[in-house]
Amino acid sequence: MSQTVYQPQDAKGRDDKANRARMLVSCPDRAGIVAAVSQFLYEQGANIVQSDQYTMDPEGGMFFMRIEFDLQNLEQNLPSLQEDFTRIADRFEMRWSVYRASRKKRLAIFVSKEDHCLLELLWQWQAGDLEADIAMVISNHNDMRALVESFGIPYHHIPVTAETKAEAERQQLELTSGKVDLVILARYMQIVTPKFIERFTNRIINIHHSFLPAFVGGKPYQQAYDRGVKLIGATAHYVTAELDAGPIIEQDVQRVSHRDNVAELKRIGRHIERIVLARAVKWHAEDRLVVYQNKTVAFV
Amino acid sequence: MSQTVYQPQDAKGRDDKANRARMLVSCPDRAGIVAAVSQFLYEQGANIVQSDQYTMDPEGGMFFMRIEFDLQNLEQNLPSLQEDFTRIADRFEMRWSVYRASRKKRLAIFVSKEDHCLLELLWQWQAGDLEADIAMVISNHNDMRALVESFGIPYHHIPVTAETKAEAERQQLELTSGKVDLVILARYMQIVTPKFIERFTNRIINIHHSFLPAFVGGKPYQQAYDRGVKLIGATAHYVTAELDAGPIIEQDVQRVSHRDNVAELKRIGRHIERIVLARAVKWHAEDRLVVYQNKTVAFV
Amino acid sequence: MSQTVYQPQDAKGRDDKANRARMLVSCPDRAGIVAAVSQFLYEQGANIVQSDQYTMDPEGGMFFMRIEFDLQNLEQNLPSLQEDFTRIADRFEMRWSVYRASRKKRLAIFVSKEDHCLLELLWQWQAGDLEADIAMVISNHNDMRALVESFGIPYHHIPVTAETKAEAERQQLELTSGKVDLVILARYMQIVTPKFIERFTNRIINIHHSFLPAFVGGKPYQQAYDRGVKLIGATAHYVTAELDAGPIIEQDVQRVSHRDNVAELKRIGRHIERIVLARAVKWHAEDRLVVYQNKTVAFV
Amino acid sequence: MSQTVYQPQDAKGRDDKANRARMLVSCPDRAGIVAAVSQFLYEQGANIVQSDQYTMDPEGGMFFMRIEFDLQNLEQNLPSLQEDFTRIADRFEMRWSVYRASRKKRLAIFVSKEDHCLLELLWQWQAGDLEADIAMVISNHNDMRALVESFGIPYHHIPVTAETKAEAERQQLELTSGKVDLVILARYMQIVTPKFIERFTNRIINIHHSFLPAFVGGKPYQQAYDRGVKLIGATAHYVTAELDAGPIIEQDVQRVSHRDNVAELKRIGRHIERIVLARAVKWHAEDRLVVYQNKTVAFV
Repeated sequence: MSQTVYQPQDAKGRDDKANRARMLVSCPDRAGIVAAVSQFLYEQGANIVQSDQYTMDPEGGMFFMRIEFDLQNLEQNLPSLQEDFTRIADRFEMRWSVYRASRKKRLAIFVSKEDHCLLELLWQWQAGDLEADIAMVISNHNDMRALVESFGIPYHHIPVTAETKAEAERQQLELTSGKVDLVILARYMQIVTPKFIERFTNRIINIHHSFLPAFVGGKPYQQAYDRGVKLIGATAHYVTAELDAGPIIEQDVQRVSHRDNVAELKRIGRHIERIVLARAVKWHAEDRLVVYQNKTVAFV
Repeated sequence: MSQTVYQPQDAKGRDDKANRARMLVSCPDRAGIVAAVSQFLYEQGANIVQSDQYTMDPEGGMFFMRIEFDLQNLEQNLPSLQEDFTRIADRFEMRWSVYRASRKKRLAIFVSKEDHCLLELLWQWQAGDLEADIAMVISNHNDMRALVESFGIPYHHIPVTAETKAEAERQQLELTSGKVDLVILARYMQIVTPKFIERFTNRIINIHHSFLPAFVGGKPYQQAYDRGVKLIGATAHYVTAELDAGPIIEQDVQRVSHRDNVAELKRIGRHIERIVLARAVKWHAEDRLVVYQNKTVAFV
Repeated sequence: MSQTVYQPQDAKGRDDKANRARMLVSCPDRAGIVAAVSQFLYEQGANIVQSDQYTMDPEGGMFFMRIEFDLQNLEQNLPSLQEDFTRIADRFEMRWSVYRASRKKRLAIFVSKEDHCLLELLWQWQAGDLEADIAMVISNHNDMRALVESFGIPYHHIPVTAETKAEAERQQLELTSGKVDLVILARYMQIVTPKFIERFTNRIINIHHSFLPAFVGGKPYQQAYDRGVKLIGATAHYVTAELDAGPIIEQDVQRVSHRDNVAELKRIGRHIERIVLARAVKWHAEDRLVVYQNKTVAFV
Repeated sequence: MSQTVYQPQDAKGRDDKANRARMLVSCPDRAGIVAAVSQFLYEQGANIVQSDQYTMDPEGGMFFMRIEFDLQNLEQNLPSLQEDFTRIADRFEMRWSVYRASRKKRLAIFVSKEDHCLLELLWQWQAGDLEADIAMVISNHNDMRALVESFGIPYHHIPVTAETKAEAERQQLELTSGKVDLVILARYMQIVTPKFIERFTNRIINIHHSFLPAFVGGKPYQQAYDRGVKLIGATAHYVTAELDAGPIIEQDVQRVSHRDNVAELKRIGRHIERIVLARAVKWHAEDRLVVYQNKTVAFV
């Protein structure tokens, strides 16, 4: 297959983003934050393109802000802007980051045998809808090698058994540490290790095939069938040490009926899973998510 | 307020239903059931208006059917049709019922202090969208007496405290036994007694303010807020002895975000609750629901 | 019926809004607007609670902003804040307004014979979900007088015939001019006059019973049935001189099937209409809408 | 790429369908149809697995029915069943067809340069969710040859210009006549000829990128943007001689806001288009659609 078919298309109709940056800020709320930040950016010659904020509780809560701005010669000028900003950040006790939009996040996608979530990500990436680079696919099976390599993406087969667990973790860390910004568990049927989670805090997204917190754990479609629910769903969340309990990023559901057996629930569910996961990955790639106390603030 | 304002309007544009009947059948699946029932109805002179069926598992599962038919002089002719049908029913080991559409179900609505679910039912009833008679409203508070009586509906105030529990149950049973076909817990904040549940098996509908089985028990909106879900929902279900675990009739959800605090979740939730409960009541009133092994088959 | 039943409840769990103001701004986009406005508010001692902005086109488009802020002793301090703000407004060629949240919009609801949209507004108002005062209901029929007056709201019966048209307009203007902030056509089946529209530019909201621009004009449900659509919808829009062509505020749809005849489409449609209209009114009441070139910017 | 990757998987968890048939019937409504058909099938030894019916108007309207049944040795026994059924069909003046579920529909997919609808169909087919054979892809461009051929599917490049129109039609008919059961216009940007439409009456499905009948014709997303709608949609319909006016099979919508420019509407729209088209194709492939007077009866 020709490479050219699958290279991500230019994002049609989008403005050039070479000079676009995104700033994420969180701090205790008090008067003057917006004024200070926007005045600072104005003085630096930056033009605010979009700005969104959220105050958890008007009385003494946390304040969160996301700003997109354009700055001439961003690459040269950003370091000094960041240095100057520490003054503001210190004054308001901020946690903050600035990302360059043109510096795409590097993704590692973990899969097992089900391909629908992977295919959706590949499709959206190829369509130019996912602003990210897919650096690699890692799988405990070899089944999807041909598919993935046809997109020009490296495929790493790392089997996982009781005996090889430690070795598998070692290989996964070696492949990803410092080379990947976000790990996506796209129906990866193995549990990632605490050490791996720690290395990628708030940077591992999992898709769980139920509307959490309903049906935690295994076989959620069987659980849903047994309970006779009238909607089934999927949940994308950041992975934490506790199974299926990390900060929820996105959820969606679809109507089902008594006519749908477990196989049919799975079929319907696959469509929800891939859509929900793709949304969550897109938002992370566009720096729209802030985690605070096991919840996500999603500027979408 | 004038009575005429609030009397249910004639269902506009609907065909007259004096001769309309609805048959619900369930039995072990085998060949020939549809043929036998439809042939029987044809020989009785009945005209099938609608028919719906469901086979749980093509190999040895249960079979469920709902048939709407018209029969000349239904009132006179139905008893003999029912007598004759026992022959078919015995042959296929059926559980079955026939209902006359013109004989509206009599409802008792239980409320406490929140009125939104009650108001929706009153509104739909008044608009002619709910084919039922509202026989009475029972409340452990007196707050909604004026409202309910303005619709010409009897209002019974039965306080419930630790001491009066037995007396309350006695009064509730006395008011409803044999006089009511369906009990609706429209945000009734008391637990109904096992004895009451037994008297109205599969005839008590509760609205739970979460997407069950997520957030069973008290304060579901607080639970939803704490977990940071991105959708909130409501569930209408038949009441069984186990709390929030009865057969689910209908569920729906609405999107929320990190911006919505608990008060806002409650506000959004009220809209879902009233819609979901009203749908469940409507389906029960139209004989569209069959309960089988803690699930509902909903012919909708 | 007791008045107390129907008085809007205190908005439960909401912060007190005596010192809350909302500012709406639109102007040609250029650098420094956010900085200037937020710096100004900070210097005035105002605390920004929420802020939302939108730039139509990063290159030379329009800029829109909505800011909610708290200011000590708002009533006394707002006039001087407004006076001082003209300096900023002139510099950026702004169109702008500031509203006090505690000063509720006064609504006039126009109805004919269908009551579902009116009832929804009354219900949401009574539940404390609609921050507005319902100043009056005006109808070309007398049918809903008892209902409306039971809420303690004045009801004006102004018949409209070919002969009385001019007189009707005169009465409507006399009742509403200067006494009402927003006019709601809640399934009012008469065409309001150009003179009336001019008096209430971008302050008349109509609910059209289709997904505009599909099915403009009369009998949209019949049109929808004839075309065999699989979704039906409703549209809330500001009224302009051209029929059904004003700026769209909100739309929603619901799934239908070949089984639904025109009467059933109307029944389903009534639910969509009341929800969509109530949302649009709520947003207008909370100063969330800006009209620009026959479109609405909705900060929701 | 290896063929084995992309061959449709066995439909997991589904019952074997070698002996499954589907009957579609339409006729003027009168008493006894269901009895006659179900009695007939019973006598033939067939077991009804699913049955669905619809009466357009209880008084003298049309009657439609879809029955799924299992019959031992279907391949050998179906011809005589069909012959015997003519007796019933004549009595009730039926139009009818019987399809064997194991005999999959052969599809020809027409595309131009946009690949999202094609990819969705390929993906669902490969996942075993689409019971059909993709016999060929025909395009007026050569862009997707590598992609399509990697699935083992023949790709025919038939350029269409003003001069080659007649020759293109000839080639299209030669490739498809008698070899294809359903033609899918998956964002095919050429108008198919009346002669071609006539050859495939009610067997050409087009995806239109708007919620019809809103935004008929070209550039619907631009039209939607200009009108300022709050939802955008897509419509799958059978193709008739009149542009965008054929029987609607399926529609869906998604919420948009003032923030979405035309490019963003297109991006969102692509997701709706592929889902809606895939649903319509699936229903046709499963014999769930009956066309009557420019509407579809969809047994789904």
